[in-house]
Amino acid sequence: MSRNGPWTREALAAGVRAGDRRALARAISLVEDSDPLAGELVRDLYPETGGAYAVGVTGPPGVGKSTLIGSLVRHVRQRELTVGVISIDPSSPFSKGALLGDRIRLSDHFLDPEVFIRSMGTRGHLGGLAESTLQALLVLDAGGKDIVFLETVGAGQSEVEVISIADTVVLVLMPGSGDSIQALKAGIMEIPDVIAINKSDHPAAKTMLNEVRSILSLDRDRSWRPPIVLTEAGRGENVAELWERVEQHRAHLEEGGQLEERRRKNLAAEVFAVASARAKRHLEETVADDPELRRLLDEVQRRQLDPLTAVREIMEKVFRIDAGNGSDPL
Amino acid sequence: MSRNGPWTREALAAGVRAGDRRALARAISLVEDSDPLAGELVRDLYPETGGAYAVGVTGPPGVGKSTLIGSLVRHVRQRELTVGVISIDPSSPFSKGALLGDRIRLSDHFLDPEVFIRSMGTRGHLGGLAESTLQALLVLDAGGKDIVFLETVGAGQSEVEVISIADTVVLVLMPGSGDSIQALKAGIMEIPDVIAINKSDHPAAKTMLNEVRSILSLDRDRSWRPPIVLTEAGRGENVAELWERVEQHRAHLEEGGQLEERRRKNLAAEVFAVASARAKRHLEETVADDPELRRLLDEVQRRQLDPLTAVREIMEKVFRIDAGNGSDPL
Repeated sequence: MSRNGPWTREALAAGVRAGDRRALARAISLVEDSDPLAGELVRDLYPETGGAYAVGVTGPPGVGKSTLIGSLVRHVRQRELTVGVISIDPSSPFSKGALLGDRIRLSDHFLDPEVFIRSMGTRGHLGGLAESTLQALLVLDAGGKDIVFLETVGAGQSEVEVISIADTVVLVLMPGSGDSIQALKAGIMEIPDVIAINKSDHPAAKTMLNEVRSILSLDRDRSWRPPIVLTEAGRGENVAELWERVEQHRAHLEEGGQLEERRRKNLAAEVFAVASARAKRHLEETVADDPELRRLLDEVQRRQLDPLTAVREIMEKVFRIDAGNGSDPL
Repeated sequence: MSRNGPWTREALAAGVRAGDRRALARAISLVEDSDPLAGELVRDLYPETGGAYAVGVTGPPGVGKSTLIGSLVRHVRQRELTVGVISIDPSSPFSKGALLGDRIRLSDHFLDPEVFIRSMGTRGHLGGLAESTLQALLVLDAGGKDIVFLETVGAGQSEVEVISIADTVVLVLMPGSGDSIQALKAGIMEIPDVIAINKSDHPAAKTMLNEVRSILSLDRDRSWRPPIVLTEAGRGENVAELWERVEQHRAHLEEGGQLEERRRKNLAAEVFAVASARAKRHLEETVADDPELRRLLDEVQRRQLDPLTAVREIMEKVFRIDAGNGSDPL
């Protein structure tokens, strides 16, 4: 038996196309392991992708993103849509097995053959998290899922790269998310397509709604004004309304031909993100293996060689880029 | 007159060494403009650096980082230490001129010849924010500043890279910083060296103190247990205590020889961050200029070529890296 078990490339592609759970699970494991077969598989499947609608669900930890996704999955399943969930939030209950405590209800979905839930670790991806997420999304897309939810915790560059592949981005906040409100206000956090304020039975939920609304009202130039929905994910309250807003955003994008444009930009950004992550890894590996490059770092440490000259020498050696010409003369 | 005005490389280096304000300002402007002269200057000055102690002050927008830095500057100046401040927080009042509203008192420091305050934009740095910040820090270091404060908003990879050069990292929170608390709890936010809970006259400040304390108590393995200080920056309350904690952390690092070790790691990380940022920029420029590479992106968009094959072709062409061998066979 080969290391890929009973799966040949053809069998795996056929299994994914048929939406077979074991094939999907195996394919995403290969993606996580950066196995060459994953790349071949995605290459085979790519022409058939584009049918899934990707909904990014982001926000600080603890606001109830997973519970909200659980409720959205239930709602979407009632409409006969098939669903995939990729969670790359290390604090997500999905990542912890999704079977603990009050999250037990999420496990219902694990038994539904038309729902595929998978959490991915945030570490150890050779090509970076953006690459693994993109591949996993393409696998579920080729597997015939109508909707794929991407759950990420909303902080950090790598998470931004992950979420940027989504067609619609939902930001989830809760009363107490003061830092996120400040970040939106300061223009540091990007404006999402839809905002959910979860735990709407909290007395401060309405205050937060008004705060967010007044922040968004400052930006009148958008063709799409992000709607804000008060939800209570645990009881499924306003989840239908939230989903309606997502569908309205989708319709907005589709009407104006903006969906293709957005996907075009997203894919290009993703290609850059993946290539940058690989370049960085190549850099680190090369320096680790090369005594001469390590010596440069020692000289920097001893204040004998300045860091930017070290960068230039490393760039020349690792990438054969002459950083000493053109617009970047340092 | 040359584009650098009256400043030759030698005059600028001499001016920086003398701590001349105009020379420092000019040098940091050159850094911000990615002017070749900045690189030469830093190369000249680097052997003389290492004397400044860098204190990173990070946290969500709106918690009062700038006001706290203002109070710390006043405190440190009373002890006859010279000070530099580099603010790379776009929401900082420093970035807005530091002369507005209730921040007027910060302007006192602008008149003190031993205090140099400079805000830097977060965009437009050819070599990335990490590179500019490192260079600005080295300039102030060579200019004889005893303490350099680096103010960054605590979110995103680029800010993490910026703050990682600091010898001591102070995280500033306030009552209402629920998202940061959740991120600390979830292990998503890195544990800083010192925590300040600002706006300590807020009724919820004590509750937050206890929350943070209980989160930190879970991590018993550190040789340094991050102290938590309740401050009220506007009135300067507990600022002396906060500074004492910073000095205790410094003493802790110096005693065990850990300061050198930390700086060694920080500098190496910085070199990688700068090199990665340059590799990314090189990638984007090359693709923008090359019709064949742009065609790859078009094919990805039309689902004719999968994104990872596109990445491989781009890597081969731009970096002459054969991504098709070794540990990364995609």
